[in-house]
Parts: sequence; structure tokens; C-alpha cells
Amino acid sequence: MSWGVDNLPYGVFSCPGEEPRVGVRYGDRVLDLARALHDEVFAAPTLNPFMARGRAAWHDTRTLIRNKLTSDLSVTERHLVPLENVRLHLPFEVADYVDFYCSIDHASNIGKIFRPGSEPLQPNWRHLPVGYHGRSGTVVVSGTPVRRPQGQLGAGTFGPCQKLDIEAELGFVVGVPTTMGSPAGAFEDHVFGVTLLNDWSARDIQAWEYVPLGPFLAKSFATSVSPWVTPLEALPRIPGRAQDPEPAGYLRRQGDWGLDISLEVLLNGEVVSRPPYSAMYWTPDQMLAHMTVNGASLRTGDLFASGTISGPEPGERGSLIELTWNGSDPIKLAGGETRAFLQDGDTVTIRATAGDLTLGEVSGTVG
Amino acid sequence: MSWGVDNLPYGVFSCPGEEPRVGVRYGDRVLDLARALHDEVFAAPTLNPFMARGRAAWHDTRTLIRNKLTSDLSVTERHLVPLENVRLHLPFEVADYVDFYCSIDHASNIGKIFRPGSEPLQPNWRHLPVGYHGRSGTVVVSGTPVRRPQGQLGAGTFGPCQKLDIEAELGFVVGVPTTMGSPAGAFEDHVFGVTLLNDWSARDIQAWEYVPLGPFLAKSFATSVSPWVTPLEALPRIPGRAQDPEPAGYLRRQGDWGLDISLEVLLNGEVVSRPPYSAMYWTPDQMLAHMTVNGASLRTGDLFASGTISGPEPGERGSLIELTWNGSDPIKLAGGETRAFLQDGDTVTIRATAGDLTLGEVSGTVG
Repeated sequence: MSWGVDNLPYGVFSCPGEEPRVGVRYGDRVLDLARALHDEVFAAPTLNPFMARGRAAWHDTRTLIRNKLTSDLSVTERHLVPLENVRLHLPFEVADYVDFYCSIDHASNIGKIFRPGSEPLQPNWRHLPVGYHGRSGTVVVSGTPVRRPQGQLGAGTFGPCQKLDIEAELGFVVGVPTTMGSPAGAFEDHVFGVTLLNDWSARDIQAWEYVPLGPFLAKSFATSVSPWVTPLEALPRIPGRAQDPEPAGYLRRQGDWGLDISLEVLLNGEVVSRPPYSAMYWTPDQMLAHMTVNGASLRTGDLFASGTISGPEPGERGSLIELTWNGSDPIKLAGGETRAFLQDGDTVTIRATAGDLTLGEVSGTVG
Repeated sequence: MSWGVDNLPYGVFSCPGEEPRVGVRYGDRVLDLARALHDEVFAAPTLNPFMARGRAAWHDTRTLIRNKLTSDLSVTERHLVPLENVRLHLPFEVADYVDFYCSIDHASNIGKIFRPGSEPLQPNWRHLPVGYHGRSGTVVVSGTPVRRPQGQLGAGTFGPCQKLDIEAELGFVVGVPTTMGSPAGAFEDHVFGVTLLNDWSARDIQAWEYVPLGPFLAKSFATSVSPWVTPLEALPRIPGRAQDPEPAGYLRRQGDWGLDISLEVLLNGEVVSRPPYSAMYWTPDQMLAHMTVNGASLRTGDLFASGTISGPEPGERGSLIELTWNGSDPIKLAGGETRAFLQDGDTVTIRATAGDLTLGEVSGTVG
């Protein structure tokens, strides 16, 4: 089954009248880890204390949980809580949040839309994974309603965003910190796992505000993540996509950190795009190496995201601005409705699988 | 005296062998608040729990401390610890860090340096306070050594930053949070106080990386703040500078939030610039209103900074890139040395006063 012993993602749940604590999803139930493993680290309301323990502890715990769910299942049964009885919370306390721009198809589409006739990629794009800091305090768990932001849409124009968009992304969650002044070591020594992420974006606010210091209010109003963090160990890996030119030494790949993950973007329940993570240009080990090459330190709970995942085909684009070519070619939905950008009441769900493994979904409704 | 009862800034200190806790500076001593006021909120290792109490508590506590230091001084004496016996720590836990770009002289200078012959200000500049998110995890207290970052300095060029710079800024610290979806209320209901801030900047890394998503590694390696947070209540206020065009409704000023603060930038002990905060175009109440107009929430510990403070005169510029016109006109130091940008071993200190009031200093040495 897709939520079986080869998956076992971590989350934070609560039962009515009880404090949030750490659990692992198994089928349609949540394993109450504090009780099943008798370890107080799982009584915390976030994954952070457990993530800080490091790679050996992550591996040993995963092995222990698999054993509990296979050989000891009769004993473990009583610590499995049905999903319908629990509330899911933001699974980790977000320290710093960085958003990258790692899809060559996405970056090229955006370049073509905003600078038609010019070279779509900026000169730096193939030399480094472009990234910027986002707002940690507005990272919310799947299901949290998303309020349409207000803002300046141009000189002298203020009002509700008219071009509310999504960005289908993968988020990487840091467990093990580094010291300021030293770059990070091996990717798998620092990164605990992966979430699905929707980087809600106000395209009209963005277009007016972003020169020269980058997106700010266009992104800071909400970023949604999935409730389940898939451990790195569970993810099937493939070689990264070829890169030209060869990246600088510090950006050489540490191994096969391409991920064969298939995403689906659903608008009001209808699939409108199928972005393939395998099409990404920069791999997550390269993002981590870049983010820390200047000596910037990592903290437990740091979140860095891939940027919009888009493939080369029109049906593989991970944002509405690409799917509708900045609104000029609206999406036709099954019921006869069309969408250039999001309307109030619209629900966007991003879900993903890696072979038999599901990464679950991140969902949010505008209103 | 400059650290008298009209000042009383808050910080976090520790005595040898003891845990960090909250204190107030009085003369050359620190008042140990947990002991003097019998309030456990000051036994915390950060100001955050106290800042979260809100404006009425800030005011009442300040009144109480003044009384302790005047009428009760004989009793209070035993809770005053000489500064030379304590270590000063980062005074607050930084939630989100935002850096603005509020000096019209700074923005104009940067425009002239990078786009000679064009209109120096971008079209959006007079319509909104341009800002972006920075890295919270590398905000450090004054005195922390600053390692010169490595990075890409252009296509195929990797190495230590050759254009290491400073930015003299004021930082505003948020005490009272808001709920997502609602803009912040009155400035003084949310903002607890003010720090001095040095936004260390790698200009060569910045020039190569910043298009289109803004500065990232050029800024994320270190940001230094002063150890003392001056309460808003202590600061003398003046009207903000005239603005043309009249800003949008949500950016109308809430009162006189111009600040008559005089800064000095010292390079290896020698004053190289005297930036006047009164020359800033956007006032801090406008920054706060802008940052939250899209519904982005505030958290206790959020830090937002003014951006480089530069006045209209050459001797009033708050960064080396302006003072040396991108290195083309190096600073001549008293000993006969010159500086285009920072060398290893250089110490930069930013200090500030507001009339008789001192805001102390933020200092750091490269190496």
C-alpha cells in the first residue's frame, strides 16, 4: 500500500483535548510515537528536536518503527490512531525559509513571458541555483485557508490581487545545523526529509515590487506545506539532469540526488498539470551547497524549496502564469468554466508520487 | 549621563558560570531585572517573552525601573552588575528578518553607480518602501567576528569576496504579533524598540547573483546588531521627511515617526561617515504598514531594518560602495592607508546618538 512500511512519513498530530505530538503515518492511521517508542522527543509539538538528532538516529528510528509495525504489530496496534480522529499541524518549526528557482523550463517560460524576444534565461542562471529568502512566519500546513492579499498593483493602484497564482514545489527540511563560517557537509547528513509546497504568488504585486531586491509581499502572505515529511531514506533517487556548463567545484553533485517524483496540480478537483520533478536542472544537494558556500549557517527547521517545478511540455507547468501564459490563454475546466488566475473559493491541491510511494498532498482554498 | 534613566535599553547578559538573562543598562552597569523586579520573564535568555507582553507592560516596567533606580537606589544597588563582569548576547531571538531600502540618497547613489545616465530611482521607489527578506539565523550580536564570504564573483569565477562592504542601518524589533490575514495596527502597539544594525554585504557576489530574485548569499553570511535595544518610548521623534507623490492610503503616516538619530561609521577607530537618520524618506511606521498590508503576520522577534542610512552629503553615506564610489575613489585613512572595500583585520563600528541619548554601538572585525 502507498502508506506502508516503505513510506512512514513524519508529522505532528493531536487528538481532541490533547497536545500536539509527533506521529508517523501508516495506512489510514497515525502511529503515536511518544507512546509506541517511549521516547520523549516525540512528545514535542514539532519534529525539530527529533530532526536535530541526526542521520544515525533517523535511520535507527525508522528501523525500529518498521519492526514495531511488522513483528510487533499486535502490541503496536493500540498506538495507531485513526486519521479521522486527529488534527494535523505544521510538522516543523520553520527557522529560515529559502526558495530556489531550479527548473530550467519554469525560468525559461517566465523569461519568455516577461522579456519576449530576449534570451529567456538570465546570464547567471546556468552558473548557480538562483534563490532568495522568504517569510518563515507565514508557512502554514495544508488545509489552512489562504486570504487573497491586497497590495499595490502598479503606480497609484491599490487593491486585491487580480493575478493570484500557485507554484508547485518540493521543500527540503534541514535537521542538522552547521556553524557559521563553514559550508555544509554531505547533503544526507543535514537534510531530514521532503514536503510538498505551494508558494502562493500574487503576480501583479510581484511585477510592480520586485526590482531590484526581489519578490516580497507577492509571496509573504502564505506558503503551504504538506502535513507529512517524507524521510530522505524513503525516496527513490535517480541521476540529476545533465548540466552545461559544468558547475563550479563547490556545486559538483554529491551523488544521485535527482528525484523521480511525479506531481499533479488539481484545481477544484480537476488535474490541470503534471509537473515531473525529474526535469529539474539543479539538484537539492547543489542547492544546499550553494546556500552555505558563503559560510551562512543552517539551523534545525530550515526549509528550502525547489522553486516551481515545470517540465518541458505545456501540461507539465507548475504555475498558472505558465499554464495560461500570463492569463492570455485561460485553462478550460470540465464544467465549462475557465481560469486565468485563481478566483475566491478555488481550491488548489498538489499531490505527488514516487513510484509506489505517495508524498500525500498540500491543499488550500482561497477565501 | 548618556546611559541614564532616560535611556534604559534592554539586553541579555550573563555572568561567568550563569545562564543568560535580561538586563537594563544603567551607566556602566547592568541592572539584573529578574532579581531586581522578581519577575521570571526576565530570567529568559531572550527579550522575546517580555516583548510579547505588549505596550502597557513595556511602559509600566520602564516606570518601575526608573523608580528603582531613583527612589530605591540603595536597595537596587546590589542588583547592578559592572559591565566588565558580564558577557552580552544576542538580545532577542530573531523570527523573520526584513531589510528595507528607505534612504533616497542611498538608492539614488546605487542607481547612479550601476546605471549611469539612467534615472537613478526605479519606478516603484517613491510609491512603496522596497524591501526583501534576509536570513534570520545569521543575525549576530556586536563583537562576533565576521568571516569574509566565498562565492561566485561572475561566470566561472569563484573565490573570496573582493568587495566586502558594510551598511549602517537601524533595526526595529517587533514585540506584539498579528494574526495572518490582518494588517498590523498602530506602530507603537507592535514595535518594542530599536537596534543598530550592520548589514555586511559582498558587492561582487551581489552584482552577479541578484537578478531577478534579489540579494541572497551577498547578505546572508552575517548581519550584526547592537547588544542594547532602545525602547521606542526613549526615542525623540520628529516629523518624517516630505514625500512626493503622496503615498497610498495604507502608507499614510501614523504620526511623527521621523527619528533625529545621528550615526557615525568608524573604520579601525576613525570616523569615515556621519549618516543622519533624519534624511530617510520612508519612516518606520510606513515600513510596518507595508510589510503587513498583504496579510502577512508578525511574530515576536521579527526584525525589520531601514536599509543603508545615507544623507545627501558625501560624508554622510552609510556604505563603502557609496563612500568610495564602487572603489574608484578610496577612503584615505589618517595613517596613510586607503580603503576601497574592507581588508581582513578591519574593524567597523557603527554608533549613534539621539540628542543626549546614546544607542551604543555595533561592531565587528573581518577575519
